[in-house]
Amino acid sequence: MALSEFDLIDRFFCHQKVAKSGTRIGIGDDGAILSLSSASDLVVSTDTLLEGVHFLPGTPPEALGHKALAVNLSDIAAMGALPQWVFLSLTLPTADETWLEGFSKGFLGLAKHYSVELVGGDTTRGPLSVTVTILGQVTKGEGLCRHGAKCGDSIFVTGLIGDAGLGLHEAKMKESANQSVLERYMKPVPRVQAGSCLESVASSCIDISDGLAADLGHILEKSGVGASLEWEKIPLSKAVSDFVIQTEQWDFPLIAGDDYELCFTVPASNLARFNKVSNDFGCLVTCIGSIEEKKGLRLSRVGKNMELEGSGYRHF
Amino acid sequence: MALSEFDLIDRFFCHQKVAKSGTRIGIGDDGAILSLSSASDLVVSTDTLLEGVHFLPGTPPEALGHKALAVNLSDIAAMGALPQWVFLSLTLPTADETWLEGFSKGFLGLAKHYSVELVGGDTTRGPLSVTVTILGQVTKGEGLCRHGAKCGDSIFVTGLIGDAGLGLHEAKMKESANQSVLERYMKPVPRVQAGSCLESVASSCIDISDGLAADLGHILEKSGVGASLEWEKIPLSKAVSDFVIQTEQWDFPLIAGDDYELCFTVPASNLARFNKVSNDFGCLVTCIGSIEEKKGLRLSRVGKNMELEGSGYRHF
Repeated sequence: MALSEFDLIDRFFCHQKVAKSGTRIGIGDDGAILSLSSASDLVVSTDTLLEGVHFLPGTPPEALGHKALAVNLSDIAAMGALPQWVFLSLTLPTADETWLEGFSKGFLGLAKHYSVELVGGDTTRGPLSVTVTILGQVTKGEGLCRHGAKCGDSIFVTGLIGDAGLGLHEAKMKESANQSVLERYMKPVPRVQAGSCLESVASSCIDISDGLAADLGHILEKSGVGASLEWEKIPLSKAVSDFVIQTEQWDFPLIAGDDYELCFTVPASNLARFNKVSNDFGCLVTCIGSIEEKKGLRLSRVGKNMELEGSGYRHF
Repeated sequence: MALSEFDLIDRFFCHQKVAKSGTRIGIGDDGAILSLSSASDLVVSTDTLLEGVHFLPGTPPEALGHKALAVNLSDIAAMGALPQWVFLSLTLPTADETWLEGFSKGFLGLAKHYSVELVGGDTTRGPLSVTVTILGQVTKGEGLCRHGAKCGDSIFVTGLIGDAGLGLHEAKMKESANQSVLERYMKPVPRVQAGSCLESVASSCIDISDGLAADLGHILEKSGVGASLEWEKIPLSKAVSDFVIQTEQWDFPLIAGDDYELCFTVPASNLARFNKVSNDFGCLVTCIGSIEEKKGLRLSRVGKNMELEGSGYRHF
């Protein structure tokens, strides 16, 4: 009995630097009491990260702390909302102080960067697992969903596609992985700024966690539409491009997961406004295709149709 | 690869009967979008349940589904709020359909009873673990905390104290445990109705998960006060009373956890109003002592001071 759950929370997570004006009661009670702007809807998302499933055994605790929050920030961005508050449920095999110091540094560092306040959680003893629940605000009625895409909308992605998947692949295969793609897997950058600009501009949005084909597939399914993509338009880093040419795995950028880039659709009538706000994204943004009436996802490369075999990541 | 995470959620958790008017987007997107009453504060709590820590290995899935939601409903009740929405993160070793059917029956049955809507979550493969995050609403500024107790306030508890702890004890010790106390451990009844009546009546409130002494201790610590309790006033079932007399473990009702009863304080000026609203609690409510200026928790039995050794449950 080294440290009680209360000591743990107190010691490592209570010296955060963020305090939101809407927080009536933060960490340390039965729950948090939060006051929302009456002009806003509440957006809530939750994600669990397990060792060996969502991160490699031996992941440095600071990187894990970063990633656990980043994937949740990404969900909030995908709904067009601004993140505000976060809850952290940690299950740990032992109360390892060095580990907790690293983890809390990664977690609270990213929280501070996006001005997100840790307002509650839970600590239990067991196999390593991290569940984060995040709360954000979006203008009433303006939250983005998967179901709004319409025929004729343009399809965009932020950033570069496939880096994180290549990073994971390299980490598993080689002793000396390419550090830049490995970093993209270990410490994804959530597109918080881009997401918050998409309100009232995009017709649908999702974040790419399971692979471009699978996640765009969710938009198509929920919206009852199809899409055509041009392979050459998908933005790739030199590392991913080299890997694809070398292995001839042309569908790699479509099935690689963990990028946490946004994929969204913009109606023609909003394109002018979109071009304006996209200057504030703070990242690359690329049109990769368009929404069509005919259901299914079609991909062309060098002018020819390409078969899509895999459809992304499955947990079971 | 029996069932994908999406199939799992769809099949067992999507035929719930509750749909709150404030739900803009429920289960099945990157997150939920919720619209709160502008007269309300949001109350949020999260709890993780692990096999062998919070429930016995081999617990029937229906009882576990019930308990996972019940302990979170209890947290919301302890803040004087009404529960509205819930998120469920399930980690399962296998996608066992019989297990999921039982679990979802217990979980959704209790959710329906209290008109709480399941609006999101996550399913992953790993050692059995359940994390629930619950959202409730309370009149702006009226949420109950641990820090409001003042000298002279009366201390109350709902229900009977120690049954769940005895249930756990019996389950571990005997082959044929007393079914009534075992049921109290396996399927606690959250004091949702009582909690929602305490707004603007109680000065502080907590739910008893770690034991009366430990949880009342949190109120005392956060409020900067002390308390005196009379052992004879603590409401006990015949089973607990018999156990205590037989074993002479007089502090058992003070250190037994898992009851999920409420412990709260009421200022003298609110006692008349309290007597009125307590008719709507739907459960026993008992005054067990009072708040004093002198710090610490004092207990008397047959007119003599009693030493309090244990202070409740620790996770590490």
